[in-house]
Amino acid sequence: MNFDPRYSGRNFASVGTRPIRPDGVDKVTGRARYGADFNMAGQLVGRVLRSPHAHATIRKIDTSKAEKLNGVKAVITAADLPDLTDGDAALYDILDNCMARKKALYDGHAVAAVAAVDARTARQALKLIEIDYEVLPHVTDVDEAMKHSAPVLDDTIFTEGLEQEPVKPSNVTKRSQYGHGDIHAGFGQADYVVERSFKTEQTHQGYIEPHACVASVSADGTADLWVCTQGHFVYRQHCAQLLGMEASKLRVTSSEIGGGFGGKTHVWAEPVALALSRKAGRPVKLVMTRDEVFRASGPTSATSIDVRIGARKDGTITAAEATLRYSCGPYAGMWAELGAMTAFACYNLANVRTVGYEVLVNRPKTAAYRAPSAPMAAFAVESAVDELAKEIGMDPVEFRIRNAAQEGTRSSYGPVYGPIGIGPTLEAAKNHPHMQAPLGKNQGRGMACGFWFNFGGQTCTDLNIGMDGSVSLAVGTVDVGGSRASLSLVAAEELGIAYEQVKAVVADTSSLGYNDMTDGSRGTFSSSMATISAARNAIKILRERAAQMWDVPVDDVVWENGHAIAKGEKYGNLAALSLREIAAGSGKTGGPIAGHSELVADGAGVSFATHICDIEVDPETGATRVLRYTVLQDAGKAVHPTYVEGQYQGGAAQGIGWALNEEYVYGKDGRLQNPGFLDYRIPVCSDLPMIDTQILEIPNPNHPYGVRGVGETSIVPPLAAIANAVSNAAGVRMTHIPMSPPRILAAIEAERGGRWSK
Amino acid sequence: MNFDPRYSGRNFASVGTRPIRPDGVDKVTGRARYGADFNMAGQLVGRVLRSPHAHATIRKIDTSKAEKLNGVKAVITAADLPDLTDGDAALYDILDNCMARKKALYDGHAVAAVAAVDARTARQALKLIEIDYEVLPHVTDVDEAMKHSAPVLDDTIFTEGLEQEPVKPSNVTKRSQYGHGDIHAGFGQADYVVERSFKTEQTHQGYIEPHACVASVSADGTADLWVCTQGHFVYRQHCAQLLGMEASKLRVTSSEIGGGFGGKTHVWAEPVALALSRKAGRPVKLVMTRDEVFRASGPTSATSIDVRIGARKDGTITAAEATLRYSCGPYAGMWAELGAMTAFACYNLANVRTVGYEVLVNRPKTAAYRAPSAPMAAFAVESAVDELAKEIGMDPVEFRIRNAAQEGTRSSYGPVYGPIGIGPTLEAAKNHPHMQAPLGKNQGRGMACGFWFNFGGQTCTDLNIGMDGSVSLAVGTVDVGGSRASLSLVAAEELGIAYEQVKAVVADTSSLGYNDMTDGSRGTFSSSMATISAARNAIKILRERAAQMWDVPVDDVVWENGHAIAKGEKYGNLAALSLREIAAGSGKTGGPIAGHSELVADGAGVSFATHICDIEVDPETGATRVLRYTVLQDAGKAVHPTYVEGQYQGGAAQGIGWALNEEYVYGKDGRLQNPGFLDYRIPVCSDLPMIDTQILEIPNPNHPYGVRGVGETSIVPPLAAIANAVSNAAGVRMTHIPMSPPRILAAIEAERGGRWSK
Repeated sequence: MNFDPRYSGRNFASVGTRPIRPDGVDKVTGRARYGADFNMAGQLVGRVLRSPHAHATIRKIDTSKAEKLNGVKAVITAADLPDLTDGDAALYDILDNCMARKKALYDGHAVAAVAAVDARTARQALKLIEIDYEVLPHVTDVDEAMKHSAPVLDDTIFTEGLEQEPVKPSNVTKRSQYGHGDIHAGFGQADYVVERSFKTEQTHQGYIEPHACVASVSADGTADLWVCTQGHFVYRQHCAQLLGMEASKLRVTSSEIGGGFGGKTHVWAEPVALALSRKAGRPVKLVMTRDEVFRASGPTSATSIDVRIGARKDGTITAAEATLRYSCGPYAGMWAELGAMTAFACYNLANVRTVGYEVLVNRPKTAAYRAPSAPMAAFAVESAVDELAKEIGMDPVEFRIRNAAQEGTRSSYGPVYGPIGIGPTLEAAKNHPHMQAPLGKNQGRGMACGFWFNFGGQTCTDLNIGMDGSVSLAVGTVDVGGSRASLSLVAAEELGIAYEQVKAVVADTSSLGYNDMTDGSRGTFSSSMATISAARNAIKILRERAAQMWDVPVDDVVWENGHAIAKGEKYGNLAALSLREIAAGSGKTGGPIAGHSELVADGAGVSFATHICDIEVDPETGATRVLRYTVLQDAGKAVHPTYVEGQYQGGAAQGIGWALNEEYVYGKDGRLQNPGFLDYRIPVCSDLPMIDTQILEIPNPNHPYGVRGVGETSIVPPLAAIANAVSNAAGVRMTHIPMSPPRILAAIEAERGGRWSK
Repeated sequence: MNFDPRYSGRNFASVGTRPIRPDGVDKVTGRARYGADFNMAGQLVGRVLRSPHAHATIRKIDTSKAEKLNGVKAVITAADLPDLTDGDAALYDILDNCMARKKALYDGHAVAAVAAVDARTARQALKLIEIDYEVLPHVTDVDEAMKHSAPVLDDTIFTEGLEQEPVKPSNVTKRSQYGHGDIHAGFGQADYVVERSFKTEQTHQGYIEPHACVASVSADGTADLWVCTQGHFVYRQHCAQLLGMEASKLRVTSSEIGGGFGGKTHVWAEPVALALSRKAGRPVKLVMTRDEVFRASGPTSATSIDVRIGARKDGTITAAEATLRYSCGPYAGMWAELGAMTAFACYNLANVRTVGYEVLVNRPKTAAYRAPSAPMAAFAVESAVDELAKEIGMDPVEFRIRNAAQEGTRSSYGPVYGPIGIGPTLEAAKNHPHMQAPLGKNQGRGMACGFWFNFGGQTCTDLNIGMDGSVSLAVGTVDVGGSRASLSLVAAEELGIAYEQVKAVVADTSSLGYNDMTDGSRGTFSSSMATISAARNAIKILRERAAQMWDVPVDDVVWENGHAIAKGEKYGNLAALSLREIAAGSGKTGGPIAGHSELVADGAGVSFATHICDIEVDPETGATRVLRYTVLQDAGKAVHPTYVEGQYQGGAAQGIGWALNEEYVYGKDGRLQNPGFLDYRIPVCSDLPMIDTQILEIPNPNHPYGVRGVGETSIVPPLAAIANAVSNAAGVRMTHIPMSPPRILAAIEAERGGRWSK
């Protein structure tokens, strides 16, 4: 499809309005069907047995007693999920994570599973499975894991990306490096240099809905899967390959989703449910408990990051470098690499270098979490930037404006930017009333910037026009944050009809072409491109039908405001035909009218945000209270502004929890100490102020309406903005996330030389 | 799409083979999900209160006691389904049939409905609904209903189609006439004339699965419907209009179907389930009992038919006429019209006239039943043809061959035939071994011919190629007889890949464009046209992608045997690219590969069959035994011959039941006496011989593979073939269907002048 080269002041009729969300009523009335809200006749209950050891060789598994228990219909181990990954290392890791093959690699690693007639029987059966473990030394800390003395999780791994070939195996799977210029020369030009080390703890996406699915494998090898996922087409591919099926034989239907945030982008227990169903010959429902979600479904990385930035007296950054160590759990990841790419992406730098290390630890397999890896890198960099501004004596906003990337800047990770929003969000922050709000005692203000790439990817939509003129839009990107409303707006916009005339659904994998995962903030960006393309294809047919009804050449028919119009003086007396009128007669003019689109949505515009935060710190307890919070972010064109604001607020809320409270706490035994919402505390309403938002619209020239992804960038600045605010309030630089009360108190005490100092 | 003008000896690779049916394993293992096999969280049980009177004015309905019963969540009457039909008389009748508005018009007519937490409460609630009926005189017999003295069901109806305006209302809604030539002159040329009157009793399709659905209406007015139907898109339209919704807001998913045969072509209780759900605010499951299916879901017409045919000594028919009276239940139908059109369609006639009368009676609303109306007309005509042949002294096959229609014949209902199969099936019958099989005492052989129009209609398919090269085919015609297998064969044929690489599903109404009902034998005919079109669209893209991968002009790339091939000497070293190879790289060459089609499948080829039947009659009891049965029918091209044979056998089996046993028995009180399979006896295995089949393939020039519809024609000849066989065996002409033992005995006695004579 040919898109307009650049969005240029189009007057939108539907896009930019705020209709009531189409999934809202069902969600608040409890009618919406999530992963656990689906049942099939004769279904069994699936349960997974998980390792209590952080690191152990599985010598032997004896399932015979469990198999004999009345009501048990299938027991499986790794032997029931043979390796069909055909050299695909990432998929092999997913398989091994689904069901441990030789070693249990973390507390909670799946080692066997049962399907039984009810939950009680299934739990009993798990207890009857006998496993002979050889417990091994473990390591859970990212810095510890890099030491030569650390227990090595996988002795076949030799670090990739080193200048010299490594001579022994290591927990570091890969070193990656980004940047340009001459770092040494750059620091030589600096009048001021700040150098700091930072740590962040591992957090979980904290989605409200646990992983849940119902799997049904027929004796003929075809299968159905109902599942809560961010991408049912990707789940189909993973499951089909791991089960040895052709993709088209597995029909995957995505449920409503109670949050994903990256945590539902690859399979966790779904292949296990399918393998259980295949063995039992009956449908199997498998729902994770919250304990399992924490222990065994992908949290984000813990990190250890060193940053050094130098600047001249005039505020120009002359050099910047960072070394970033990201824990991956027990399998290779690309998390440090993403951190290394994003760390300095907000700035226009002559000399920059980042180095990332992916580090294996005995923790659950790390998954994406909203702009994965960027928040920790931004925490480190934006803390150092703030400190550097302070040393120079510049306002932190002015300092950032001076160094901000702009159109034409070569980014620290390589590409040259098109039109971007970092400058505008900083200018908007400078002028925002929040900056003038008074601060009291023990209160501090912080701000920080953030960047995210955004992603496009493979996308398909089908747009079908019913004979009553109502429009069914079938999309394949799971709706995690309002995309059905946004895509209905886009279809209405393009067709020139009312929003209410369009109904969008997420189609199953057998009814639509392949769609990439809803991740990388791609849902609305990419599916709106496909929807526009599909609508334009439908309009072409609508024009043809009108031309046929009028018996005029199709080239004389234009489409305007939902109507076919015959252009030309000779057609003066032809009344315009509405979409409804053309649709009503479609059975007589050639059949149903539809538009389709299959495309790769290239050109997802990069996104920037600036956040401002006011915090009060209780110096006696270390307790914090968020007083004010403002998000300023570039959305490209905001299709449904309320949803965009919701994304801004949601990302900030998650960032606040990450910054102040959330962390995985491991015991010395390598077991997770807080696998539940009581001890792993996400923010509740009373923890949060009203989060103010400001949408900036710097059009993405690669999208016909100028749309950019909006979902992820909002979680990037909070860690740093809050750290800067806490540092200002407490008078001490915070370098360890989360800034829980004990940690703040310790920092204050250390500054004072008191009893909390290390 | 441009189809080949005529199928001409193409060598098929997949089409014409007999792979194992894709739905077979699930159906025999009980995993297939029918209408009642779906449940939603919080669903209620819906039950319908039905009139015990054949004809009664509803003075008042008091639902207050039922509403107060604990566990009752909604009670509805016609007031909850207001008339939104906007002048659409056929839809108004459907609405009134769903829920009686002013009068109960038959025993079993729905008058109220409840939704309750369980079936027991729902049944109790029905008993608490108080209805004040004024019982009216009723009429259930088609001939009685035509009398001037008959109670008139609807005093607003004046017969349509009469030469003179009727002066008073009547139960005859319409008179229709077909034919050409000069009847009087034709009979003047005849040496022999046969004139007979016939009656057939009302039968039910006898599908094993009762009507069943789960309806869920959200507070925002959108809704989901899971339902057993022959056409979920049509059900969507009916329900949306009756509920006052836009079609796109109602997502209808069709279950597997345990038989329909025309009986599931319009809504019966689905709008009631939706109205209950809307009122209760919860999902409602509504499953009819067998009693309800018989009493209140459309059986076929009872008929009364007079036939007169004249012929010369040489066997040439000079004139033929028939008067056909078809009962419609209490609402207008087009059943007699179809009878009048099909009655003489097998023959090449110079002078022919048929007149049909649609007659209202106090019986359930008549529905289509496999080639609706044709079997009764064929029974009358083919009986008279047989008798005429006997009078002339000609072999009945030879007599039919002499008069058979052929290419170029002007049919009795108007159109001029293209290439057709009546002659070939008669020739094949003449030469079939069945004709030489010996007959014993009290045994008789009969044969008869049958015709059906077949239908095309609106059809959409989406064909999506996965990255592993497996193909998902989404179709919209409900699979009532194997169309998923046949359409997979067609997709495989067109793409040049293996059948196993294709998986067809029936997509829901939100995921695909509008499809007409699976009726008129259109499923495989029309969806195969759309599938071929979609596959050719996909092949165009596959060629483009190959051209892109090779960097050659697309015009140099052809598609052969599942591969792209660069044609030309300069491409000598380019290895052919398979569909799988192109699909694997599709993410890098432009995205997912698909083909779509929306079309009106014109040119469904008419279909003819000849059946031969041997029967033994016990002259003491009137009991019959079917000894041999042979179906010879034109299929155009048989896509999956096993399914075609299954259709032939299934139609014959139903025809045998209709001919010999099945009938609605009404008491004088107007109540159905046998609403259950114990008293309404359909044939079981032991009643039937192995039904032999012979597929003839006279290509349909309007279909690229020559396909015709095959599902219905096979039920047209049995009534006549069996009647001719019984008549030959018993030595008495049978004129009343079913030929149950008492009726045969009565005919024999009457011939003998015994006590059974009337």
